[in-house]
This record gives sequence, C-alpha cells and structure tokens, in this order.
Amino acid sequence: MQKFFYPRSVAVVGVSDDPANLAQGIVANMLHFKYQGKIFLVGRRPGTIFGLPIFPGLADLPEPVDLAAILAPARVVPSLVRECGQLGISRVVVESAGFSELNQAGLTLEAEVRAALKQYGMRLVGPNGLGLVNLDLGLALPFAQIGSRINRGRISIIAQSGGVATHVLAWMTKEGLGLNKFLSLGNKLDVAENEVLEYLLEDPGTAAIYIYLEGVEDGRGLLKVANRATKPIYLHLANIGPETAAIAQSHTASLTTDERVLEAACRHSRIIRVKTQSEFLNAVKLVDQPPVRGNRVVVFSRSGGEAVVAAYACRQFGFTLPPLSDRLVQSIKARSRAGVIHPANPIDLGDVFDFTLYTDIMAAVCRDPEVDAVLFHYGPIAEFEQEPARKMARRMLELAREAEKPLAITVLCTPDEEDFLRDTLGVPVFHFPEDAVAALAGSRDLAARGEILSPQALPPLPSAATIAETLAGPNPEGFLPLAQALTVVESLGLSLASWAATATPEEATVAAGRLGFPVVLKLSAPSLIHKTEAGGVELDLHDAVALQKAFGRLAQVAQSHLPPHEAWQVVVMSQVAGGQELLLGARRDDSFGPVVAFGAGGVDTEILDDVALRLAPLNPAQARELMAETRIGRILAGTRGRPPADLDSLSRALAALSQLMLQFPQIREVDLNPVRVFPGKSGLLALDARIRVDA
Amino acid sequence: MQKFFYPRSVAVVGVSDDPANLAQGIVANMLHFKYQGKIFLVGRRPGTIFGLPIFPGLADLPEPVDLAAILAPARVVPSLVRECGQLGISRVVVESAGFSELNQAGLTLEAEVRAALKQYGMRLVGPNGLGLVNLDLGLALPFAQIGSRINRGRISIIAQSGGVATHVLAWMTKEGLGLNKFLSLGNKLDVAENEVLEYLLEDPGTAAIYIYLEGVEDGRGLLKVANRATKPIYLHLANIGPETAAIAQSHTASLTTDERVLEAACRHSRIIRVKTQSEFLNAVKLVDQPPVRGNRVVVFSRSGGEAVVAAYACRQFGFTLPPLSDRLVQSIKARSRAGVIHPANPIDLGDVFDFTLYTDIMAAVCRDPEVDAVLFHYGPIAEFEQEPARKMARRMLELAREAEKPLAITVLCTPDEEDFLRDTLGVPVFHFPEDAVAALAGSRDLAARGEILSPQALPPLPSAATIAETLAGPNPEGFLPLAQALTVVESLGLSLASWAATATPEEATVAAGRLGFPVVLKLSAPSLIHKTEAGGVELDLHDAVALQKAFGRLAQVAQSHLPPHEAWQVVVMSQVAGGQELLLGARRDDSFGPVVAFGAGGVDTEILDDVALRLAPLNPAQARELMAETRIGRILAGTRGRPPADLDSLSRALAALSQLMLQFPQIREVDLNPVRVFPGKSGLLALDARIRVDA
Repeated sequence: MQKFFYPRSVAVVGVSDDPANLAQGIVANMLHFKYQGKIFLVGRRPGTIFGLPIFPGLADLPEPVDLAAILAPARVVPSLVRECGQLGISRVVVESAGFSELNQAGLTLEAEVRAALKQYGMRLVGPNGLGLVNLDLGLALPFAQIGSRINRGRISIIAQSGGVATHVLAWMTKEGLGLNKFLSLGNKLDVAENEVLEYLLEDPGTAAIYIYLEGVEDGRGLLKVANRATKPIYLHLANIGPETAAIAQSHTASLTTDERVLEAACRHSRIIRVKTQSEFLNAVKLVDQPPVRGNRVVVFSRSGGEAVVAAYACRQFGFTLPPLSDRLVQSIKARSRAGVIHPANPIDLGDVFDFTLYTDIMAAVCRDPEVDAVLFHYGPIAEFEQEPARKMARRMLELAREAEKPLAITVLCTPDEEDFLRDTLGVPVFHFPEDAVAALAGSRDLAARGEILSPQALPPLPSAATIAETLAGPNPEGFLPLAQALTVVESLGLSLASWAATATPEEATVAAGRLGFPVVLKLSAPSLIHKTEAGGVELDLHDAVALQKAFGRLAQVAQSHLPPHEAWQVVVMSQVAGGQELLLGARRDDSFGPVVAFGAGGVDTEILDDVALRLAPLNPAQARELMAETRIGRILAGTRGRPPADLDSLSRALAALSQLMLQFPQIREVDLNPVRVFPGKSGLLALDARIRVDA
Repeated sequence: MQKFFYPRSVAVVGVSDDPANLAQGIVANMLHFKYQGKIFLVGRRPGTIFGLPIFPGLADLPEPVDLAAILAPARVVPSLVRECGQLGISRVVVESAGFSELNQAGLTLEAEVRAALKQYGMRLVGPNGLGLVNLDLGLALPFAQIGSRINRGRISIIAQSGGVATHVLAWMTKEGLGLNKFLSLGNKLDVAENEVLEYLLEDPGTAAIYIYLEGVEDGRGLLKVANRATKPIYLHLANIGPETAAIAQSHTASLTTDERVLEAACRHSRIIRVKTQSEFLNAVKLVDQPPVRGNRVVVFSRSGGEAVVAAYACRQFGFTLPPLSDRLVQSIKARSRAGVIHPANPIDLGDVFDFTLYTDIMAAVCRDPEVDAVLFHYGPIAEFEQEPARKMARRMLELAREAEKPLAITVLCTPDEEDFLRDTLGVPVFHFPEDAVAALAGSRDLAARGEILSPQALPPLPSAATIAETLAGPNPEGFLPLAQALTVVESLGLSLASWAATATPEEATVAAGRLGFPVVLKLSAPSLIHKTEAGGVELDLHDAVALQKAFGRLAQVAQSHLPPHEAWQVVVMSQVAGGQELLLGARRDDSFGPVVAFGAGGVDTEILDDVALRLAPLNPAQARELMAETRIGRILAGTRGRPPADLDSLSRALAALSQLMLQFPQIREVDLNPVRVFPGKSGLLALDARIRVDA
C-alpha cells in the first residue's frame, strides 16, 4: 500500500482537452492540492491542459512513473493495464466504470485485468471508484471535485462509495476535522478493505479510520486486522436488508450482511460500529482525547438548562454522575457568590463567569480518581472575555491531558470563535451536550471491550471422532435426520430428553416402556425439515395404545410427505415437564463465520425477540456474558428469591456449540429449540435439534 | 399574550451606566433588532446609555408604557411590580434571579409578587428567565446576547432554560432556520407554557413550535391545548430521572416526569416528542412541506452509495420502497444512456447528470398515487451547472407542492450554494440521507395518529355506586385490603378466580369446599401491602388439613406483621391453572393524569420489560392497539396456528380500568398481576389486585 499512497510520480491516463473530459478533474485536484511528485498526462490526442503536455501513450513518457491513474473507457482498460505491466508500473488506479457492476461483459473485462495483474505482479485500486488521496504529499486522484477546502489532518477514510466518502469529507471540513488518506474501493477487483485497513493501522499519519462498506466479504479477516488496532476504527455498513441489496449489487457488487451478526461482531471487537455518517463525525471528535475508562462523568455548565440536558443524556447512555468530593464542594463554595453555584453533579455554575474558578473546578475534577470523564459547557462570551476564555480552554486541555481524562466541550459563541477553539486550540467542540455524551459513551464502550479469544484458545471436543462419523453418515448435505442430529448433540456432552430411534410400533412400544410414559414421537427422515408443520410430531402419549395409534399416523405422514423409498425412523422421546424453554443455536455467517445464539425458546422465539449472538469462539465465561445480554438470561440468574437456573450447564453447552462450529466447518446451522433448563445444578435437557450441513 | 408579544412601548427597569450592568444587554438587543416601538430606560442613578436618558422611576416616564422589563435585585422586584400596577402597566417581564429557585426568601418574594399581580390584574413572565422576543417588531428583551445574526422566520420557541433556547437559536441560524417568537418561562410564577402554546397555535407568524421543559406540571392541560394544533409542536423534555431532578429543582423549580408516561402521552397526541435539540433542528426542516401521509418513499440519487444509505435509513424507520410503476421505468430507460441508470427504487442515477431527466423523474414520481414522499440526493455541481441546478430545484419544489408530496433533499455542493438553496429557494436541505428519512418519519408518525377521545366519550361504569361504597369503606387512604380491592375489580365486570373472605379456619374450610380444591389463601389487612414478601400467601392447598395448617401460619404472620388490633381476613381463592399471565393496571400521573398499562405479568414483569402505557380514556378498540404494542400482545393475537386469546375480554377490561380512573379521582393506582387470559372466548381471570387510594 505504501507505493499507492506515496508515489514519486503519477501518470494520468485518459486526458484530453475536451471540456467534458473527466480525467481533467484528476489533474485539477492534483494541482489544487499541490502534489509534491511529478505529474504526466497521457491521452490519445495531443494537446496541453493546465500547461502540461499530453503524451500519446505511457511508453512515450520521458521517465518511468510509480503509479498510473486510468480514467478511460472500460474496454481499453485491460490493454492499458498490460501496458503498465510491460513498462514496470506496478501500481494502477482505475476510476472508469463499466465493469462487473454493469454487466457480464464488464465481468469479462475484470477477468482480463486480473490476469494482467497476476502476470506482471502488479496491484490495482478500483475500478469504478474515486482512486485515492494522501494529503501528506498532495496526492489527490479523484476525478470528481472533492472540495476545495479540505483540511489536512489525521483521519483516514476507506470507502466503497465515492459519493458517501465525499459527502463525509465535505462535512469533516465543516466540522474542522482534517483528512489524511482516502481510498475509494470501487469494485475491489484487487485491493480490498482489509489490506488498506492493515496499512492505515500502521500509518503514522492516521489517528482514526472511517470505513464505509456496502457488504463485508471477509468479516473474519476484518476482525483479525482490527483486533490489533490501537486507534479507533469506525465501521459504517449501510447495505443491510433486501431493498439495498439490489442497488449495492449493481453499484459496487456487494453481499448483504446480517445486521445482528454485524452488531455482535463489532461489540466484541476493536471496531466501533456507526450507523450513520453523522455518528462518525461526532464520535471522531474525541480522537485526540484519552479513552473513557469508566462510567463516571462530571458535568459542569454555565447554563443550568444545558446541565440538565447533559445529565439527561448521561442517563440515556448509561453514565453515572457521581457526587462531588467534599474537598471540591468546599472549594467551590468558598469561591462562589453565596448560593449561586450549586456544588452538586451536574454543577450549575449559575451566573458566575469566573474563568479562574472554572479552571480550578477542572483541576479538582481531574485530580479526583472517582471521575472518568468531564463535560463542560460555557458561553456566551462577550468580546472582552475572548482572550481569558481562550486561555481557560488551553489550560483545561492541558489539565485533561496531564490527568489522562477525556474532556468534551459544548460552547455557545460566535461561529468564528468556535472555529478558532476547534481548529487552532484543538478543543473537542460538540454541537450539543447529548452529542458529547454519545461520543464519550462510544469511547467508554470501546475501552470496556473484553478479551477476544483466538480460535486456538479452547480445547478441542473430546468426542470429535463420533461427531465426524455421524456427519459422514448417509446424508452429507442439508438437514440431518433427527436421530443423527440428536447423536451429534449428545456427543457434545449436552443432555437430551431420553430417546430412542425405532422402526416399528413394537420397537417404539418397547422403547417407551423403558423410557417411561408419557412420551412424544417424532418422525425422522432426511427430507423432513419442518416436522411439526408436516404433522410429524405426536405429543402427550400416555400409554401403549395411544403410542401405537400415533405411530400409525406418523407412518401415514411418511408415506404422503416423503419421496418414495426414503428411509425413515420414529424417535421416541420422554415428555419433559417443567424448566424454562430456551433456544441454543449456532450458525455460520458467510462473512463473519461461526456465531453462537442464546435466548428465549419455544414456538414464540421470533415474537419474544430475546436472542443474543456472539461470534465463536467463546468460553464458558463469555457464554455467561452472552446469556446476560438477554432478558431470559437475567431471569435465569435468579429473581425475586427464586434460585438461579443451572447456568453452568448452559454456559458449557454454548461453549461446546462454539467449538463444534470451529471444528466442523461443514456445519452450517445448529438449532436446539427448545432446551429446558432446571434450577440449581439440575442441568438442562434438549428436546429437539436441527442441524444443517453443507456438502 | 398578545400584549406581551406586541407592546407599543417598553420600559427597561434596572439600567445603569456601569459597564457590568446586565440590563444594558436588554437595551442593546432592542436596538440591534430595531424594536419598532418606544423604549424608555429606568434606573436609580441618572445617566445616558446608547444615547437614551435613564429616568429615575417608572412614574417619571413621559408617557404610559405597555410593558415593563425588570432586571433589578430580587428584593426590590415586588415593589417595582406594585408600582407597575399602580401606573396601569399590565404586562411585566422579570429577568432577575433570586426567587423560588434560590431559597425560602425567594419563595416569599414570589408570594408578594403574586399578590400584586392579583391586586392589579396584571400578568408576568419570569422571573429568572430571558424574557421574550418577537422579531415581527424587533422586540428582544433578553439581557444575554442572543446572537447577532438571528434570521426572522416562522419558528417560535417556548423554553424553561434560556441557555438551551439560545443554544438552539444559534444552531437555527447555522441551519438557515428563522425565529418568529421566543418566550423564556423562567420560574413560571404566572405565565406558563400551556397559555403561551395556546397563543402561538393561533399566531399567524408561527408555523412550528419548539418547547423545552424540565418538567410538565399540567400535562393534561398541555395535551388539551396541543390537540387543537394544526402546526407541529416539538416537545423536548430533559428533566427525567433522579440526577437531573435536583438541578432542575434549583434551576427552574420543576417536577420530574416519568419518561414512559411522557412517551405514551405524546404518542397519542398532536405533540412530537424530540429527545435532543438536534432532533428538533432536523425535524423542523420539513415545516413547509405537506405531511407524509403514508409509508412509501421513492429515493433517487446521483450517488449509488447515498441511495444505499437512504434505503438503509428508510428500513430503520419503517418505510417501504415500493417498486416504480412500469411507465416510470420505461420513461427512465428511454432517457438514460444504456444501462447506466437502474430504474428500481432506490433509483441510482449513475453517472447521468441531466437536470431535465431528474425533473422528469420527479414529475412522474409526484404523479404516482403509490408514493407518499420523495428523497433526492444530488451533487457535486460544477460552476457552470449552478444555474440549471437551481432551476431544477425550484421546479422540483413546485412539483412537490402541486402534488402535495413532501420532498427532502440532500446535496453535495459548496456551503454558499447550500445556503442559497436553503435560504433563498426554501429547499429543505438535510445533512445526510438518514436525517431526511428521520424527519419524514416524524411527519408520517404525526399524520398517522388516531382519534383522541374526550373523557366524555365513554359510558360511565354501571356499577359506580358499588365501587363508591367500597372505596368509602374503613380504609379511605393507602392500599385497600385485598377483599375490598377484589370487590372493586368485580364491580368493573372483570372475572376473578372464585374467592371468599373468611375470618376463621372453619369458614375458610367451608368456602374451599364450595370453591373446590386446590385453593390458595391470602392474608388481607389494611397495612399489609407486600403480602408475598411478608409470607401472607399460601399456595397449592389440596385438602382441608393443608388449608387449616396454612390458615394457622397466616394467623401468625398477621400477629407478627400487623399493628395490634388491626382487623384482618383470609381470602380463599381457587387455584387457577393454564392461560397466559398478564399485567393489567392503571395509575394516576401527577402531570398527565390517568394512564392504563398492559403487558407481560407474573413475578418477572420488570425483567420482561414488556409493558405498554396509554393515557385514559381509551375504548376497547384503542385497548387493542395498546395490547398490540407489546410482544405478549402479539403472541396473544395467535401465532403458529394457535388460537388467539380472548382479546375481547381483555380490551373490555382495559377500557373499564380507564373508566374507573376517570370516575374515581381518589384512585391512585390499580395493579392486577397476574391476570390469566384463556383462548377464544374463554375469558380472563384476575388472581390478585392491589388498589391504592388517596385521602
């Protein structure tokens, strides 16, 4: 990536003196941002643009270049890329559209380009993107106007949509935030987000990274890169759901990512998920502040109303407002006019506008080990107060830095003064108190994230051989017949309601006698996926007569629902009463890999909407965290004097499911619903199992 | 209020030529905004400020004035107010602090002022506020600088905090939004929000109203005023929760309002609740657009990425993106370069920047009866495209207006051009697509609100006499003994599990024989509130022996827990199995009055967190809406082939609870938990009842 971001010379290919020529935009941007290297222009017709000559071909350039930026019709791009390879130009940026995002012919063109890259050992950014920007040396390859007033700063952007990125850039400028590097992914023919992210994480010029994606192809890879991060990564993923899938497909050829999996993936990674561009623009203002290491905020404000608004926001975001230390209360009282300042948190500074007092309060708060972050609101500032107020702001930033406590400020002053505070003094100025609190909460949540397990962290399943054998049975693809699925679950060490697979009413009666009535019967066959809906389940069988009748009904279901000659069995299972119905499950996400699920079970799972997800691997302790994310998990922990459920058994079961998914990549989905869990150490019983296996 | 907002002359009281004199700020604001009436200054020391003479007293003014704005020490305010009364000045604005918000002495001062108002028939705004502003005639009474660049416009503000209001004002200016009137409530000694709101709803200069409050004292009154509104009212209430209650108390002496009651109150009123200042600033941008009358949005965008972002936001806010009509698809295809525009919703305009095409799409979308709102994104605009783009924006606004369809726009252009589009053309320009969608959703939700019942709309309870008699029993205050509470519930027409109140083990045994075993016993006594926790409930009694032992245990509980000589009874109740446990309840909010609650019941109600509220009165149809707001309500409606529960009985029960609260204002709280409901027409059974009554 270094060669992409720091080329010593660039050839812009596709330039002409036609006013409608888009490649001119690249040249204009490079000149505007004063690119420190050499620029050469290439175009079919000779001419001069911005005083620079247009060379007829890459081979005609007076010296070799490090990078070629191509904006020519898609059909000529493969040959241009090959020419670059022949000339030893190892980095190519293609901004032209008309590739895989458009049609089949475009897909073929991409294949040709890919072959050329391989042949010559080259790398390519794009096509169908805006190229890249590095303000460290004035490199600005987008053909579109990216804004004449972009500040150089410490934020870098990776984006799948040039439109979204330039919109964010425009607002960064309005917010006084500066850009360092920007890369537009386009169709990701070669360079994709994970590689760019890895580079930017090491890049000394980059302090924070915004990634806009419309699909995460390699979520596991993304997490792996991100988990080494020591700077904030803000991931904005918009393409979630059917409506947007179509356009994103055509737009930059993306996959749809499940919203809940993404949420779970980010929650336990070093990535901050932002749902909107605004959320990023707000959160990143804390980039130069230390992390929020706890939950305790002190708010002080010259406006009582803003203090109330800030305290309200703190409560919404789960912050506490600890009482002030006695010493601080005394020092404020001693300094304030009688009764006007209320020395409680939030501190309403009343009508006192005494910069020294404010600074003293800040110093005292910074010294207080019981405080994790500070929020300050002040204003308005009359003309003559400007200089002292600036001095105060400077001193407050120093105090915060020395104490390693994050400081967020809202201020009511003229727009010019706000610009000065922000751009010159580096004060993190937020629009409103709630914005400041939201940003502090984001920093706190990131800092609070726990250990991320490596897949090697957990011991392998002891019964792996049995499971492998069962999976290698007669049905290597699709849903396993019930009996096979139950065998896999048993091999994980999970208790099942007592069961037996039987072939005849007589066998079933013998089994039921052994298991004890009442029992349930379940039809088991490879092609029977929705057995309840098909009438393949018989409940509440209290004696042999009822059982044999039920068996007969299942035999009829088998005859009418199953393909001819398909083998089937009837599973006899003890009917279990009591306990709490749960869902335990796991599935393999195309992008983020294995995910474990826990929540309220039974037929109303969807409506109860009380299922939490976590990426595998997870150990029993993390399984307990997962359970605690659900309402049912909090009920199971014991409420109103009732004993807690057997959480140990549950957490071991979830960890085992996680391990199953890691060790058997052919398993697509495991669904244990219901599982009944009992109080104390009484364990759990799975009553049903669905397992889907890939070929 | 008219006399407050349109005075022909104003006396500013408390002015001196001391540079630290705060009242000078009032004069400066009046001059800055070119007040069209006459200004007179009053202060103890003679002098001249801004070329205006300072008169020693109100009596010395050369002519009578309509309004006095007072910023003098609190202790002299009562006499100043009296003097106003004597001189026939019927409108007074007091900005001084040091009243009820400060201490007991301040409270006394307020009482004196109140007496003067009564004596002279005067009205007062404040104290402890910023007064008021009416840009229609340049009236600007705040002593604080409210911003030199405020635009005159159509938005009015009522605020309990001057700091919050001025902060919002500063941002309104940044967003190109204009102020019409502003009133700072301060301590609301006399004029309070409901009266101001009523005035502004009739005020032709006001098109939308922002109200910032730190407590709603008369929520019912607020709703009553608001429900006549034909313009949007944005209510921002920040003082919710214990942390902020203290500061708000001192700050402007407010009560804490329950967040969930407020939410329920607004959801069924003409008020839009905003949780932050930003939310208001965003939502109000649609003020000149017609309401969003449905759920179907068409998005079209020059940036595919922004289209994806917009579609994602639509999904978050519950909008659908209907497919385009065939005719529209054909017309787009005919106009676009082959394959570059994808004629699906969202419409990705690709690289085509053809203003006529855009306008044509807008015209077609406006004609389509299947579309409720339009979201458009475009940019960047090169210099030469500026004029045609403006023409397009103008035409699009016309089309939207003619079709009565709301249009929201995001645009990527220079800040100057954005200002022009917004301020000169009146284009509703949003920061990002999600902001536009949020605003559209707010408009849709307001338009979708149903009928608001008047308290007279429902028939009175037939059994009111029995209830009145029961409430007038021996325990007129606090929690009713169980037997009394059960009698009230029965009188409402709700079924209870069969029960009998008994005094001896023998009576209980007879009763149980009649009701049928198994039974439960519950101790009933005036001072026994938490009977389960006190051991006052005995479950699962299957025969007379068990019952008599249980009765003995309850007698012991009575002896050890109740005050000496307190009468007690034992309620025998059939033990009910089956059905679904629910909570039905009602309570009287200090501010918003009676509220009805429905949700998941049993001991885990708090954790299940599945209770919805609605303000009384409600009829059975609205009770069904209330139930549908909960997860348990959706389960009861029938899922996965199971029959629905007896929703008719439930909705009648909720409507009866609503009526009970309206007819018996002494009832503070009714809590029926659990109530068991059965399938089909099998009704419901309440198993417990707690009723709290005020003196």
